Amino acid sequence: MMTPYQKLKRIFTQLSHFHYIQRIMTWDEAVMMPEGAGETRAEALATLSCVTHKNLVSKRNKNLLREAKQQQNLSFWDHANLHWMEKKYLQAACIPNKLTEKMTKETLICQQAWRKLRSQNNWREFLPYFKRVFKIIKEVADRRSDALQLQPYDTMLDEYAPGFNQKNIDEIFSKLKNSIPHLIAKITEKQAHEPIKTLRGPFAIQQQKQLGLSVMRAMQFDFQHGRLDVSHHPFCDGAPLDVRITTRYNEKDFFSALMGICHETGHGLYEQGLPREWIDQPVGRIDSMAMHESQSLLIERQICCSLPFYQYLMPEIQEKFGQQDALSADNLYKMVTRVEPGFIRVDADEVTYPLHVILRYELEKKLFNAEITVQDLPGCWDELMQKYLGLSTKENDQDGVMQDVHWPAGAFGYFPAYTLGRLIAAQLFATFIKAEPNFYAELKQGNFQSLHRWLQKNVYAYAASLPTNDLLVQVTGKALDSDYFIRHVEERYLN
Amino acid sequence: MMTPYQKLKRIFTQLSHFHYIQRIMTWDEAVMMPEGAGETRAEALATLSCVTHKNLVSKRNKNLLREAKQQQNLSFWDHANLHWMEKKYLQAACIPNKLTEKMTKETLICQQAWRKLRSQNNWREFLPYFKRVFKIIKEVADRRSDALQLQPYDTMLDEYAPGFNQKNIDEIFSKLKNSIPHLIAKITEKQAHEPIKTLRGPFAIQQQKQLGLSVMRAMQFDFQHGRLDVSHHPFCDGAPLDVRITTRYNEKDFFSALMGICHETGHGLYEQGLPREWIDQPVGRIDSMAMHESQSLLIERQICCSLPFYQYLMPEIQEKFGQQDALSADNLYKMVTRVEPGFIRVDADEVTYPLHVILRYELEKKLFNAEITVQDLPGCWDELMQKYLGLSTKENDQDGVMQDVHWPAGAFGYFPAYTLGRLIAAQLFATFIKAEPNFYAELKQGNFQSLHRWLQKNVYAYAASLPTNDLLVQVTGKALDSDYFIRHVEERYLN
Repeated sequence: MMTPYQKLKRIFTQLSHFHYIQRIMTWDEAVMMPEGAGETRAEALATLSCVTHKNLVSKRNKNLLREAKQQQNLSFWDHANLHWMEKKYLQAACIPNKLTEKMTKETLICQQAWRKLRSQNNWREFLPYFKRVFKIIKEVADRRSDALQLQPYDTMLDEYAPGFNQKNIDEIFSKLKNSIPHLIAKITEKQAHEPIKTLRGPFAIQQQKQLGLSVMRAMQFDFQHGRLDVSHHPFCDGAPLDVRITTRYNEKDFFSALMGICHETGHGLYEQGLPREWIDQPVGRIDSMAMHESQSLLIERQICCSLPFYQYLMPEIQEKFGQQDALSADNLYKMVTRVEPGFIRVDADEVTYPLHVILRYELEKKLFNAEITVQDLPGCWDELMQKYLGLSTKENDQDGVMQDVHWPAGAFGYFPAYTLGRLIAAQLFATFIKAEPNFYAELKQGNFQSLHRWLQKNVYAYAASLPTNDLLVQVTGKALDSDYFIRHVEERYLN
Repeated sequence: MMTPYQKLKRIFTQLSHFHYIQRIMTWDEAVMMPEGAGETRAEALATLSCVTHKNLVSKRNKNLLREAKQQQNLSFWDHANLHWMEKKYLQAACIPNKLTEKMTKETLICQQAWRKLRSQNNWREFLPYFKRVFKIIKEVADRRSDALQLQPYDTMLDEYAPGFNQKNIDEIFSKLKNSIPHLIAKITEKQAHEPIKTLRGPFAIQQQKQLGLSVMRAMQFDFQHGRLDVSHHPFCDGAPLDVRITTRYNEKDFFSALMGICHETGHGLYEQGLPREWIDQPVGRIDSMAMHESQSLLIERQICCSLPFYQYLMPEIQEKFGQQDALSADNLYKMVTRVEPGFIRVDADEVTYPLHVILRYELEKKLFNAEITVQDLPGCWDELMQKYLGLSTKENDQDGVMQDVHWPAGAFGYFPAYTLGRLIAAQLFATFIKAEPNFYAELKQGNFQSLHRWLQKNVYAYAASLPTNDLLVQVTGKALDSDYFIRHVEERYLN
């Protein structure tokens, strides 16, 4: 005789299968699908999300959740799992099936339009697609707002960074807004006297790929349970036993692909490190993009923007691309730590990066609080870019409001997770390096094992069993504190 | 107010989405998936087939079918569509959900085992997987037998070649069994005096791929709605707007990949040519593998084993692989029309090929009629190979009973479709070439347009609206007649 909780576990296992299928189909859409299949793919995924939604919000589940909460003797993990089950139920039950279907379909179609129209810098033609998406997402947020008793925009933030909301993010971001501009000024002044030698391409794509694969192997990425491909924009998708990471190659600049790979490998290692016995349950899945980004950014920024990383990689880089003045560890380190305001978030250095996020966060807040409308975005974007980074995106929407896939995909409220992730990464790494002071010497040899072990034990193994701040307190002794990040910047750039 | 039939159409559109997802996930499993994800993939696909099954066999559908059959004024196509809807319902309704789930999972796991164990020639370790699969398939056949009032093995034949059964296949195959051995004897005697120059590899894989893509383009394959990849065994999968064909490359022999591509392109063109307005309905999908194989084999055998095809391709072949004695149109034509008994069905020439199929058909009949068991297969295989082709597969199961993916995949009853398809192809092509006597001259120029137009109009456009024999009568004036094939062999090989 199964208990209500056991019954729920079985139902959520099935839901995890749908989720897995949806993730692979989405990966396929971005990596493999021939262009002409776009619409039929969108319809199929809409049907799938509809079925998933129906299976999640059934009356039976509602009753089982009520009964399961009465159960005694649930383990700590089971308890956390039940919490996530209920949260998923509540987030979904307030959304009519039709709306879920519409959301899946319209966001996919909008992304397809975005891919084409961004390259044409064509905001005007993109606008109707984007309006439809925002309208749907706003309705979702409004419905969740009623059901969860949160402000509409907070329901979005809560989806990507559970535990965070406008109130605590405002506090964190205002601290960053206060300190970062000064840091940028000091750093750029210092760096003005440090010339960088320019890379001379082309760098053969096949060699770039081999370099990336080699770094992934060194970082302990498990190719029995994952693979590397090419897409328009790097991402990590799939499931813990089937991790799909992508990058894109540029013959003129091997950094772009390499950094994409390093970042996504951080995500991939997290997925692959999740406890096997829970991967088909909600508690075993990382819904917190703040946590997920902390793992990708820790690899990308703490590790792959450090001097020892290039000391390790230099022989291989020279073997693959030949020798040239610019190909020295020192010079590459200088390149990846160069601070310079630019248009593109994904290309930004770690010091200006938070300002890109703060800009998007402020625009999203205004959108959801109806202070501005979707039409106003290009103008508001330009204004904030000028204010924070001294750059204008007038008539240049492809490098402005159209630069990211997130909004076309309906992922409003996602961006703050990047900066929260950045702060979490700095805090975790500071703790790690205290425990393993020998790490940089190991890194110079291409040895990532102590880092991988530490993250496995202190982060991956917990999956979603602990709220972010509880995890941080347990591992680092403190709740999230942006000082770690500021200190990291000062140490790396102003010492 | 929707009519019952319109309601059914909506339900079957949803089912076609599930089908599309299942096809892409299956393609991904064979082409992309990292090995370690095998089990989780099997579970996810089992869940999906379970949901599909539930949605198909609902009481609501049963009632709608009954009501729709009372509807007046259904068009010819709607009527045919309703026929297929009911057939799909009847085929599925007698199978419990659990059994569907088990079948999906076990056949996938058995295929994964087969991939590994075939290369090790390890029948003994493969046997337990295979026994489980056969037991499940036999149960499916027995249940359908009761529901459809057909013999168990006939229900399998009916699935892959609707309209055909043991009775009419026995007749057709016995005609072939009577004439083919004589033909083989005469042809091999004649060919003994025609020496062939041997190819000298290696043939770079990148060049082989470019050659294949070029042939696909010439044949009018639409890359906006399809793509070419690599898998263990060539196949065509996906959906009409998203056709996935695969091949595999061998550096020593470019024919293997090229013939795979030509065959699968035949399937792909059929899919891409199906009438757009029906692709999400049962009548718009080709369940008859006999019809589907007729299209792949027409391309592979009638076209790509003809002299004009190599006259067209020779300049490109020489450009890609350089010049060598063996690379002349005459010599390649001789190579692809060489008749020689061999172990492997997929490598067989068109004259010995039917005997490979007849062997499998006879073993399947005995299996389903309980005259032999799965354990007996290696011995029975060896015996029939000796009888029909004079070759022994003793201790060589990897080239014997383990050579095909079909049985591990649970596709018993499929093989006859290859030979039926072969006969259909010969009959259709004989009619085509009478209507377009100029075609071989066009083919020499790499011009496939008249063929593509004719197939579009006379085959693709009908989808599944006509039973195979009705289509043949309409297009060729006669029901299926194996004489066309015999005449083709005589003309090509003994003139």
